[in-house]
Amino acid sequence: MGGYGYHGGFFPVLDSAMFEQTITPRFYETDAFGHVNNTVVTGWFETGRAPLFRLFGDAENPASMPLILARVEVDFVAQIYYGSDVILRAAIERIGNSSFVVIQQAWQNGALVARGRAVQVYFDHKTQASAPLPDDLRDALAQHEGELPEN
Amino acid sequence: MGGYGYHGGFFPVLDSAMFEQTITPRFYETDAFGHVNNTVVTGWFETGRAPLFRLFGDAENPASMPLILARVEVDFVAQIYYGSDVILRAAIERIGNSSFVVIQQAWQNGALVARGRAVQVYFDHKTQASAPLPDDLRDALAQHEGELPEN
Amino acid sequence: MGGYGYHGGFFPVLDSAMFEQTITPRFYETDAFGHVNNTVVTGWFETGRAPLFRLFGDAENPASMPLILARVEVDFVAQIYYGSDVILRAAIERIGNSSFVVIQQAWQNGALVARGRAVQVYFDHKTQASAPLPDDLRDALAQHEGELPEN
Amino acid sequence: MGGYGYHGGFFPVLDSAMFEQTITPRFYETDAFGHVNNTVVTGWFETGRAPLFRLFGDAENPASMPLILARVEVDFVAQIYYGSDVILRAAIERIGNSSFVVIQQAWQNGALVARGRAVQVYFDHKTQASAPLPDDLRDALAQHEGELPEN
Repeated sequence: MGGYGYHGGFFPVLDSAMFEQTITPRFYETDAFGHVNNTVVTGWFETGRAPLFRLFGDAENPASMPLILARVEVDFVAQIYYGSDVILRAAIERIGNSSFVVIQQAWQNGALVARGRAVQVYFDHKTQASAPLPDDLRDALAQHEGELPEN
Repeated sequence: MGGYGYHGGFFPVLDSAMFEQTITPRFYETDAFGHVNNTVVTGWFETGRAPLFRLFGDAENPASMPLILARVEVDFVAQIYYGSDVILRAAIERIGNSSFVVIQQAWQNGALVARGRAVQVYFDHKTQASAPLPDDLRDALAQHEGELPEN
Repeated sequence: MGGYGYHGGFFPVLDSAMFEQTITPRFYETDAFGHVNNTVVTGWFETGRAPLFRLFGDAENPASMPLILARVEVDFVAQIYYGSDVILRAAIERIGNSSFVVIQQAWQNGALVARGRAVQVYFDHKTQASAPLPDDLRDALAQHEGELPEN
Repeated sequence: MGGYGYHGGFFPVLDSAMFEQTITPRFYETDAFGHVNNTVVTGWFETGRAPLFRLFGDAENPASMPLILARVEVDFVAQIYYGSDVILRAAIERIGNSSFVVIQQAWQNGALVARGRAVQVYFDHKTQASAPLPDDLRDALAQHEGELPEN
């Protein structure tokens, strides 16, 4: 299941249904410990979910997207360094009636450095209430269902 | 258990062993939905834990603090608005062998808007390994053990 | 012109027409140099201008404020440390036809640590064009005109 | 001097001595106006200077870099939108005795959206004092001297 990894390391090859993007840590994202600050990772994971947001609407008019975030969890597995790129991965773990769960990872130099989960709720901003996921969105999400391998 | 709340609302009176601080949302913390962006809350909760960091070392030399963050969880309970102050609360939920769990809340206008949990690990930055919590720190943390009431 | 300063230092007493607020640096605002990252200061200065934004509209509906930022300048005078509060000051330096200039300062431990300037333009978000400042706003701004002493 | 631009627009072709990188705006970088918040741009411009930082030291040990930021200026030329990539450009405008000036731009959809300037000072973190730029660094910087065309 492994493959030739980033910067010479090994990391799992991602199923094409999953989302992957590469970001470069920014200097202002470090903190006085000399590494990337932990609170930055929830921002990166929001970015890792951005391809999913596009299923729900127009990036040029983000306020129209019928989505809210209900919960996040992040496990900080290893320190994240300035100076090497980070690969963000995301997949749909579970689709509920009006919500879905995204699993997420960050990899650096071939090692898993953070994993997390986000619960997004289908939400009507006009009525300020959640609503059942329409079938077309449920189908679109299902195409990205899967696990994110860790080794 | 209630008390005269902030901006006329009601919210629970905090036991003096818990940590409480008030912050003012900043305009750049809003996003295109018009509210405070969710990813900001993990930064606020780090700030809510800052009084605990001081038990572990010198704020003027933060890199010397023998602490790392292993995990965070946040439930986004209600939208957070620009224009009203937010009260951050923190207490120690559980003390383990080399780690402890912090429970955290954010309140705005008398309503709970976010709750979370952070797992902090006692960590020797020189050996890059966790270590058992020394007794004096265990005692200091125990003085802030408690629950955060939600109503 | 001096006065009993913050944390025992000396710093100039502010004319009551000026805006002043105190903020506590957050750990995630530090960077690998161990101090507050420079790019944070433009965010703080936005916060220092927030009382001015309120002259232009409703904080609960910030998107309605007829204001855009045209330019910022910041001089980083001294390093800014985690662990001590920072005082933000702002005053109106000059009022033009459709814009005004805000002068700003950040002080820590009785020393000036950053100074800056922001050019804000009165702007109609519907027509996407600047417009002359109405007389009532011009008068409200004029009440906060002044210099920010540096010693 | 023009060329086929990004997303079908036209923008100037960059001399190879200049630095260029592409970043994708993140949702949390927007604000309640629905666009990218202005204070984000100083962070982006720090990122735009990162290739220069590498001339001064090891990205894995950023705290060792003998550089501080003395001043920034940013002109916000046009609104910056979520949903389209941004090109960051940087070049050395002037090399002084112990400092140098970087000119910077941000382009989106073929249009200049922000321009700025940063004054960086060669700085010995041990003595906490500025120092004359050594000849090898002066030569390295000189290879990136130039103007950034605006049309």
